[in-house]
Amino acid sequence: MNMKELDFINIIKKQINNKLIGDDCAYLKDLGIVITQDNFVEDVHFKMKWATPYQIGYKAAVVNISDILASGGKPKYLSVGISLPQGIDTNFIRELYKGILAGSYGAEITGGDITGSDKVFISITAIGTTLDRKISSRANAKPGYAVIISGEVGSSADGLNALINGHVKPDSIRAHLEPSLDVEFSNEISGKINTDYAMMDTSDGLADALYKIAEQSNVTIEIDYDKIPHKKDITDKKTILFGAEDYRLVAAVPETFLKNIRHYTKIGKVVARKYNIKFTANGVNYSNYDEIESYNHFGDKL
Amino acid sequence: MNMKELDFINIIKKQINNKLIGDDCAYLKDLGIVITQDNFVEDVHFKMKWATPYQIGYKAAVVNISDILASGGKPKYLSVGISLPQGIDTNFIRELYKGILAGSYGAEITGGDITGSDKVFISITAIGTTLDRKISSRANAKPGYAVIISGEVGSSADGLNALINGHVKPDSIRAHLEPSLDVEFSNEISGKINTDYAMMDTSDGLADALYKIAEQSNVTIEIDYDKIPHKKDITDKKTILFGAEDYRLVAAVPETFLKNIRHYTKIGKVVARKYNIKFTANGVNYSNYDEIESYNHFGDKL
Repeated sequence: MNMKELDFINIIKKQINNKLIGDDCAYLKDLGIVITQDNFVEDVHFKMKWATPYQIGYKAAVVNISDILASGGKPKYLSVGISLPQGIDTNFIRELYKGILAGSYGAEITGGDITGSDKVFISITAIGTTLDRKISSRANAKPGYAVIISGEVGSSADGLNALINGHVKPDSIRAHLEPSLDVEFSNEISGKINTDYAMMDTSDGLADALYKIAEQSNVTIEIDYDKIPHKKDITDKKTILFGAEDYRLVAAVPETFLKNIRHYTKIGKVVARKYNIKFTANGVNYSNYDEIESYNHFGDKL
Repeated sequence: MNMKELDFINIIKKQINNKLIGDDCAYLKDLGIVITQDNFVEDVHFKMKWATPYQIGYKAAVVNISDILASGGKPKYLSVGISLPQGIDTNFIRELYKGILAGSYGAEITGGDITGSDKVFISITAIGTTLDRKISSRANAKPGYAVIISGEVGSSADGLNALINGHVKPDSIRAHLEPSLDVEFSNEISGKINTDYAMMDTSDGLADALYKIAEQSNVTIEIDYDKIPHKKDITDKKTILFGAEDYRLVAAVPETFLKNIRHYTKIGKVVARKYNIKFTANGVNYSNYDEIESYNHFGDKL
């Protein structure tokens, strides 16, 4: 038997045979909500020695809120399931919840569960409303659409690298431990757009998001590498393209819609009805996706 | 610092200051849904040597569906977050999901998350609709109401005891590992009642449910111990009163409403507007709740 996560996901998909799975959130049209859930596990997603309890709580919430924003929903409720080792003290809980509240971006906590465990385990489910919003789908990119991004990528991976290697890079480390979200970008698109559009967050890296949109929309996306926003001191192409957990939003929307968005960077366009990704910058040859190795810890999203 | 779970829960309640917390589910009126989440952790809530992967998945789902039924909602969606050690094989996943599907009682899986971990960790969030239903509250019991239960208690605790001590008690063990739910009882009450009512499941034992309803409703509940349904071979009063995880439903409803319910046992009544519980059977003196020790692993519901 093979223990890889893709095997697991394929088994699960086969068993539940569910069309709701595929986007950052499941869109439950009958209830007018989008829903997402992320597990946040000690020594898999975070290390106690690197992050404060506040930062752990903040990020556990933010990864879910980001999925709601990527779907175009408005974050509304969070359910928080936490399991904690006996050695945890009350101050940890207090700070953890401060972080969760800060990372909830106005969503209200509905309750959840608290139990024991060997390691810190946090599972948060976020619900967003779809009222007065148009919900995105990864399968909605169309030839002629512009491909835009809400902010800089690469900082989080640079920060993780700094933590692993003991480098002093406070801005990047903060980007990794306390990523901010681009609420306005999501609101402006989902609140104003009338056509179908595709949006994802860069939780698994920019290249991964572009690949998934291109594949599920069955289109060719052409990216001008030199347009991708990043900090000046981050120059490694792999970090910029494949670095995960910046939680920026990438969207494919009609060119004519761009006037409705205040802050964005156009990084490319959808050019054809055939699955492919082309990077057009000089000297960069990532035109074949086989070359791409994205950051992928054990465990991908369903 | 004190590490007790009640401290944790009090800190969390203080920080989130949220009126949604207190019932088996949070009732989100604006969305027309009830929501609940339970963590199901290896060596805290189940042991791999006692339960099959199917049974683990079944119970992880059922504990949440039971909360939906206790609220009076109709189970509609499940979000499944699972974290698994590297040693888990694909057959485990297949059987686990079969169990989750069986325990979902018709609710649809929306997706969720799958990640790595040291031990098996399952966090399921269930959503129920409130359409054409009246939702229960623990604070709704009123003097004059009948106190009824949907089925037998004590079997699950008896089964857990058999597993711990290596006794052969297949029926009780099955009641512990694969508890069935009383869907019809919930449907008949929430679908037909016009008045406020209180309902809870016996996830933490019958006495615990009665205590919580009495406390939050600020009423006296009088129970006729001899009426409490249980298997003939289970005679230990502590097992019957305090044994957990049978997932029966206990409700306080107007006497005149009882004609609408096909299968129930009346075990007592609400008698006064003052918080107390009285057990009236001969020779049983549990009139003071201080004597009651309910089953309580580290970790209570929020």
